[in-house]
Parts: sequence; structure tokens; C-alpha cells
Amino acid sequence: MYKSEQLALSLKHLIESGVWKPNEKLPSLRQQAETSGFSLITVMNAYQELEAQGLIYSKEKLGYFMTEDPNTIKIAKTVILNEKIEINSTIFRYLKSIQSEDIIPFGIAFPDSQLLYSPKLMQTLGQRAKHRLSYEQMPSLPPGNLDLRKLIAQRYCMQGIPTDPSDIVITSGGLDALNLSLQTLTKPGDYILLQETVFYGAWQATEHLGLKVITIPVHPEHGLDLDAFKNAITHYPIKVCLLMLNSQNPIGFTVSDAIKLQLAKLLQEHQIYLIEDDVYEELYFGHKKPLSMKYFDQQNRVLHCSSFSKTLGAGFRVGWVYAGKFSESIQHLQLMSTLSVNSFIQNALAEYLSHRYYEKHLKTLRNTLKRLKNQYYQYLIKNLPDNCQVHYYPSGYFLWITLPAYIDGNRVYHHMLEHKVSIAPGSLFYRSEKIPHHIRINCSFELNDKTQNALDLLTQYIAHYESNP
Amino acid sequence: MYKSEQLALSLKHLIESGVWKPNEKLPSLRQQAETSGFSLITVMNAYQELEAQGLIYSKEKLGYFMTEDPNTIKIAKTVILNEKIEINSTIFRYLKSIQSEDIIPFGIAFPDSQLLYSPKLMQTLGQRAKHRLSYEQMPSLPPGNLDLRKLIAQRYCMQGIPTDPSDIVITSGGLDALNLSLQTLTKPGDYILLQETVFYGAWQATEHLGLKVITIPVHPEHGLDLDAFKNAITHYPIKVCLLMLNSQNPIGFTVSDAIKLQLAKLLQEHQIYLIEDDVYEELYFGHKKPLSMKYFDQQNRVLHCSSFSKTLGAGFRVGWVYAGKFSESIQHLQLMSTLSVNSFIQNALAEYLSHRYYEKHLKTLRNTLKRLKNQYYQYLIKNLPDNCQVHYYPSGYFLWITLPAYIDGNRVYHHMLEHKVSIAPGSLFYRSEKIPHHIRINCSFELNDKTQNALDLLTQYIAHYESNP
Repeated sequence: MYKSEQLALSLKHLIESGVWKPNEKLPSLRQQAETSGFSLITVMNAYQELEAQGLIYSKEKLGYFMTEDPNTIKIAKTVILNEKIEINSTIFRYLKSIQSEDIIPFGIAFPDSQLLYSPKLMQTLGQRAKHRLSYEQMPSLPPGNLDLRKLIAQRYCMQGIPTDPSDIVITSGGLDALNLSLQTLTKPGDYILLQETVFYGAWQATEHLGLKVITIPVHPEHGLDLDAFKNAITHYPIKVCLLMLNSQNPIGFTVSDAIKLQLAKLLQEHQIYLIEDDVYEELYFGHKKPLSMKYFDQQNRVLHCSSFSKTLGAGFRVGWVYAGKFSESIQHLQLMSTLSVNSFIQNALAEYLSHRYYEKHLKTLRNTLKRLKNQYYQYLIKNLPDNCQVHYYPSGYFLWITLPAYIDGNRVYHHMLEHKVSIAPGSLFYRSEKIPHHIRINCSFELNDKTQNALDLLTQYIAHYESNP
Repeated sequence: MYKSEQLALSLKHLIESGVWKPNEKLPSLRQQAETSGFSLITVMNAYQELEAQGLIYSKEKLGYFMTEDPNTIKIAKTVILNEKIEINSTIFRYLKSIQSEDIIPFGIAFPDSQLLYSPKLMQTLGQRAKHRLSYEQMPSLPPGNLDLRKLIAQRYCMQGIPTDPSDIVITSGGLDALNLSLQTLTKPGDYILLQETVFYGAWQATEHLGLKVITIPVHPEHGLDLDAFKNAITHYPIKVCLLMLNSQNPIGFTVSDAIKLQLAKLLQEHQIYLIEDDVYEELYFGHKKPLSMKYFDQQNRVLHCSSFSKTLGAGFRVGWVYAGKFSESIQHLQLMSTLSVNSFIQNALAEYLSHRYYEKHLKTLRNTLKRLKNQYYQYLIKNLPDNCQVHYYPSGYFLWITLPAYIDGNRVYHHMLEHKVSIAPGSLFYRSEKIPHHIRINCSFELNDKTQNALDLLTQYIAHYESNP
């Protein structure tokens, strides 16, 4: 055992024996070093370990403080941040494993590319390629193609969100938008709040940037648990939240306007920034597009990230962030990484969006996804054992399934992969020491003999699952 | 003055008075804190300041040591790394200033897009857009399109560099390749070696990643100064070099094979990695493509970065890195940032490169650049005052001009911009407290009335430059 672990352990005993009151300041690093006889570095490491365990927290320049009685903090949980390579490798291996063309891709994150095919967009691309347009070869430097930014800004305005083209920065897909936003708003060691079950990209990015992650659980009814949120921001010096509130990946819920309004007030009161991952915003089944947090944002505290990846094709790698006053910082980061986004595609998208083609395409896409999701849902609730719960929400193309606690989602994933069917195991989306008994199904593929057969295999395996194979 | 600056200053006096011998260990942080009465943090800051000034150096876990007599180390210079925002903002403002369409763009980094226009590539793009190819919409996950990687690998093989497609990772342009390579090989605080005068992207990236930069001057005859290089790697624990050796930006030189071989031996001996920025590799005017350092690399110590930006169009944002054993690390980073590169363009490039179109296109491009560079060079040596030096090298499309020491390149830049002509001031490429008396001219634009007029303006301004305006 390292000295710092030894010290952390003995301090933990002191904490549990109630030596310090909630929010009481702990001895300074220097004091602790003198008392304990350990070096300053050892003391620092021990404090950081306790902080990572959620037992104490730090305030800049003021030192370390006791959290509320750790036993009462059941809602907000910290995550220990030393598994960087392991997590990333898991996801890496997962993504590689499901890439093969002969695999039924229920596990992938993208909708069936057949549904995203827009003849008009490809026609536009083809026409642009015919003419000797010199600016296709020129990079459109940050913040990106002005016409495209104007059209994106218009779409915000149509929802009642005042937007200027200069608020928008075009990025290399939605993931790039998230990552640039995180880099702009945080520095290593900052606290960030995530949903407990969330798109794995969020885990990767926060770990890579050395952020301290606080999670709040998903509310079974409302999606976002406001009490847990309040609890978390009261107990930890959270600087930024990264949340999905519309058609959340992997679960699928959309948070109500009432709760979004409350959330906006809390962000304002506590001066916390929100990075909103809203890449599924267009895939609602109802009559009205759900509002983004940007609608409720009075203080420029929300960076809204979205993309064309889930509507026109993830292969294009075009996303954006409503960056507002952070536009310049984000552009600075682009000048050191991707420089800009493919100008040929940006030009074509700008032309395409200036007609009504996109709206028509989206309407068809939504109708198709709605039909398919219903078909999959009906099939699954009919054929899965009663002790499985299929979570249906009227948007997107994921179905999140809670299996009985004894069924290991990872085993389901490995078994199905042997039969050339991919599913996404719950373990990609949360961290738990319990058996990860969830799976996510992509239901954007037409039901035909092959996909139907794959679903049969899945439901049969689950129905006859034996806990000790 | 901060306490740490005060302490650094008094320690500097001690150093200059010769209290410590070269390579002697300095008092530990703790000892120094006790002796001086300053806090540990203050001492740490003071030591880091002295390190940044090149007076002392650190070895992991061993503490700080005196450098060789600092007065003798004239060749290798350290650069103080606290100007992050300032440098980046300068480049940002510069790039914004020259973007307008009505400016004669002698300052831009890209060749005239007219020259990069390849009808066959655009035809390929157009044809692909016509067919309902579902995989255009699908992201081609890292390491990128296999056919494209095969064709890139073939080009290495043709030069005698054994390459497997799995060695190559497709990136969002050459800058992304450099940045991903840097992130893979370094952690904050590591020492990196750069050329003293170099593409500004290198400065930005190293600063952003918190690296300690050691520079070596450009050798007036050979481009790379091997003695300075040896001196630098002997005195500093350099982990990575980032160098341009073919058609170097901004100066233009190409380093000889003999020197590259020596360099490869030194990298091997000292176990140093090289990130080679080779984006101008195809723009040679001679009969044979210059070899990259990858050719001389026996130990997988070279990450070779290149792109199609200088040959087919920077707007496409497609580059690559010969990553070898680092392929997986780089892909991990991509999974957290851009995810992948536009698959539509990758597919089209793969098809295009599989024919001989690219070779023909390159041949025409080289001939045109050669003709233009000669025209500009002849004009400039005829019309610039004799005390100006125009550096001509037979490759690329940049002319680097050394002005007399009293002419401020920044003033030339500002003056020309008022007349709607951009040039690149030397200050973008090096850090100096002296007047930056260099400018870089992009000579890839056909000489017509407009460009000729712009050159007239430039040469006249320099000829009649008055040091006190």
C-alpha cells in the first residue's frame, strides 16, 4: 500500500468516526503533513483520494472541507477517476466488435443510413461537384460557412430562441461540439455533473480532460431528478453540467418544459454552465419539437450542441454549437485541431437547407422511426419475459430494456455477437459494481427476415437465460 | 512583484555568481523553503520560472539541476510559456484579418485553390452523389476508410518505406494529425523541440498542451543545425521533436538525406520521438520526391503527418498520420473528438487515388508552382532593395524574405492590409524581442494586373520604408 493510501484510509476512519462536522474545514495540507509526519505530496494525494471518494471537497485557495455526512448523500455520487484507459478501451473494443458488415447492428448508435438518405441533398452535392467552384477547395475557417450558420440560426429563431449567426460555430460533428465546449469551460480538476446513465462519449471526454464527475440518477418519471440535482450542486462546487434532456441516449426520455424551467433557474442561481447534448432534437414523434434549454437560458449559461448526424448522415461529420459569447474561445481551439469542417459539405448543406427539402425529409424520417419503434416495442413486450421492462418514449430510435437483476447485459451482448447480432450492453452507459442488467436496442432497421430472426434470438436467449452458464 | 518572482530573481543572482556548478543538484524544494522562509508553492513557482528561463532543468523524482553555464548555451534556447492566449489571439486576429475576399491573399497558407481544382476528383464526387450508396451516410470509424489507407500505404511503399494500411490513421487534415500525435506522445510539462522559425500551428499546439519548448535555430545552409540539435538533446530531457524537413514552412528549405540519416541516428540513440510535419512533401520541383524521416526510421520513432490540403484542397480536411504502433492511441483520441472524417470525401478520394489522376494532377501542379515561384522570385530580386534577401528553394509556394533589420515586418503587414493586400509577417513564426524583420509571400497566384500591382505596392513600400513613420 502506498503511503498516501495508508493516510487516506486512516483519515477515512476519522471521518467515519465523526471527528469533523459537515462543511467543517479539514487541517491544511501543511498542518496535516506536520501532524502526520508524511510529506506534503503524500498528504495532497491522500486528500485527493478522499475527495474522489466524495468524503471531502475542495474550494480554491481555501482548502478541503467535510461533505455533509457521507452516509446521507445517497443521491449524488462521485466516481473515482482512475480508470481512463480501461473505460476508453472497453468502448473502443465495443465499437470495433460491431463494425463488421455481416452483423445485424442493433448495437450501433446511428439510425439506419437508408433512412437518412436524402436524394435532394445528394443531388445538391452532385451539382456542386460539376461546376468549377473554387471555394469548395478553400477551407471555410472557423466559425464556419456563414450561409449555413444563418440557416441554423433561423431554426433556433423559429423556436423562439433569439439567435444570431455569430452565436453558432460549425464543428466536426456533435461529439466535437461537446468536446470543444468542455475544453472551453473547464480545466483539469473541475467538477462536472453528468446523468448517471448517459451516452458513453460523455464519460470518455470528462475523463480525458481530468474532470471530477458527479452523477445524478435518472428520475423514473421525469427523467431529470431535480432534488438530486439540487443536492449535488449544493454539496459540490459544480462548474459545468453536461446533460441530455431530449430523447436522452440511451434511455429515451424527454424532460418537460416545467422541469427545464426549474433547471434554468438553478443554473442561474448557482452560476453553473450547461453543455446540452441535443443531437436527437429533431426525432420527436409529437406535433411540436421539444424546447432546448437554450429557450430558458437568460444568462448565456447554456452551450447547445447538435448535429446533422442523426438526420442526414453521421458520415458527413457536421455539427454545431450555439456558443454565444464563447464562440471565440471555441474557434481558438479549432485553430489548433481540425481547423475547420469540410467546406464542400458545408456549402451543399447550406444550399439544401435553404429550400424546404430538409423539413420534408425530417417529416418522413420521424414517421418511419415512429412506425418502426412501435413495431419493435410491440414485438418485445409480447416476446420478452414479464420480468423485463421495455422503456418506450415517443421519440428517437432506441429502446432501453431493464432486464431482471440476475441477467448480465454483457453476457447477452457477447452471446448475441457470436450469432452476428450486436446490441449495446448497459455497462457502456453507467458505472456500477452490480451486474449491468440493461441493454439498448437500435430499432431503426426495417423488420425483415434477418432482423426478425435476430430479435427472436435475443428474446429467446433472455427467456432461457441461466445465471450460471 | 510576486514573492516567487522575487525569489527567482535572487536565485538568478546566485546562479550568475557561480554558486552552483553545471549539472549540480540545487537544494530540494523543501530545503529551499526552509532556508528562504518562503512557502513550498512559492519555491516551486520560482524554480519553474528559472527552468522556463533555461537556467535550471528538472529530472523526474530527482529534483532540479543547474544547466551548463547558461552563457555558453547560445544554441539551444528555451521559450517562456506563459503567453498562451496572447499568441493564439495574434494568430486568430491575423487569420480573420486576411479572410476577406477582396484582399490579395499573399498572406494565406494555402495555395491558390484554382490550382488544386481536379476535374476528375469533382467528377468522382458527383458520380458518387448520384447513386444511392448508403455507406456515404455512415461514419467510417477510426482509423478511416480502408481503401484510402491502402492507397496511402502504397505511396509510402513506392518510396521504399514498408507500410501496412493499419499503420495509417485518417485525420481531419494535417493539423489534426499533428495535434493527435502530440497528445499521444506527450503530457503537460514534457520537453519538446521545435525549429526556431516554424509554422505557427506548432507554437499553438505545444502551448495548448502545456509543453516546455526548446528551439534550435535554422542552419543557413543545411536547414537543420545538427550541432544545435545535439546540444539541445544533451542539455534538456527532450521527449519529442516536431519538425518540418521538406519544403519547410515558412522558409522553404529541404534537409538533405545525409542530415536526415544523422538525425535518425540521434533520435534512436537518445530515444526521442519525432513528429514530422510533411504536408508539402508532394510539392518538390526536382525529379525525385524528397525522402521523409520515416524512410530512415528503424525503431518506429517517427510519426509522419501529411494531408491532401496542399494538393487537392484544404477545404476537404483530409489528412493522415503514419502512426504505426501508436495507431490505437490516436484512434482512442479520435473517439473522443471528431469520431471520424467525412466518409463521402474519403470514399471519393479512395476511388480517385486508385487511378493515375492524382499523379497527373500533381505533375501539373508542380510545374505551375515552379513557374510561378520563379516569376515572383525574379520580380522580387529585381524590385526589392539590395539589402533585402529573398530565400529561394526549389519546392512549394512560399518565398521567405529577410528585410534589413530596421524594417518591422508587422508594420509592412499592417500597411499592406490597408491597401487590401495580405502578407504573412515573420512574427507569426518565431518569438523574438528584436524587430521581426521577415515576411512570407505566397506566390501561387497567377501574375495579373491585380497581383502585379500588389507586388509593386509591396516593393515600393519596402524601398521607401522609414523607420520612424
